Amino acid sequence: MTDAPLARTPEPPYWAVIFTSVRTPEDTEGYGRMSEAMNELARKQPGFLGVESARDENAGITVSYWASEEAIRAWKHIAAHQMAQRTGRSLWYADYVLRVAKVERAYTLQTSPQEGLLPS
Amino acid sequence: MTDAPLARTPEPPYWAVIFTSVRTPEDTEGYGRMSEAMNELARKQPGFLGVESARDENAGITVSYWASEEAIRAWKHIAAHQMAQRTGRSLWYADYVLRVAKVERAYTLQTSPQEGLLPS
Repeated sequence: MTDAPLARTPEPPYWAVIFTSVRTPEDTEGYGRMSEAMNELARKQPGFLGVESARDENAGITVSYWASEEAIRAWKHIAAHQMAQRTGRSLWYADYVLRVAKVERAYTLQTSPQEGLLPS
Repeated sequence: MTDAPLARTPEPPYWAVIFTSVRTPEDTEGYGRMSEAMNELARKQPGFLGVESARDENAGITVSYWASEEAIRAWKHIAAHQMAQRTGRSLWYADYVLRVAKVERAYTLQTSPQEGLLPS
């Protein structure tokens, strides 16, 4: 990960793609290569605003942020194409949920500490 | 964590609170207690639909899902009150962003594998 852990997104509204997954124990190397390639690809897409990611022994969560639904659709089209050329999807993922959401409000530690109180 | 890694949410629309944070290295024990207490509290709130969480050395992401904006407001009020009684917030967090978003669409590995292609 070369990204900063927190994405510097603009003022809402914008869009979020929340991808939560459970990995199989298989093909860690191939999965890592795919993951890096997809992140590279996302960064080049028009409308890409940033990405945040964390993974532990239970689950992985990647949230990517986008300027518009059109940007998400274009990215999804490319991502689907790329993934179709790889064989590992059912090998890599035991389960996942992908949610597309419109971000309406955002708070940070700096800008609004009282409003932002909701710990992980 | 006693939760399943993927929250079993209903059909959209519903709401998501995306909390991304960077921890300080301080007070791991106190942080853990607070985190567990807040999760317990969230689960008892009306309109709580589920939670997904992951943390690695870079960041932590917790996404909680809610039936309505009212449910989020009520939870935020309680969470703020609880946090105000604790001294650790600025000790625990180096930085965070909290985003409130409306989930419009959701895909899973089972229900829509082609649509859901967007790896972490």
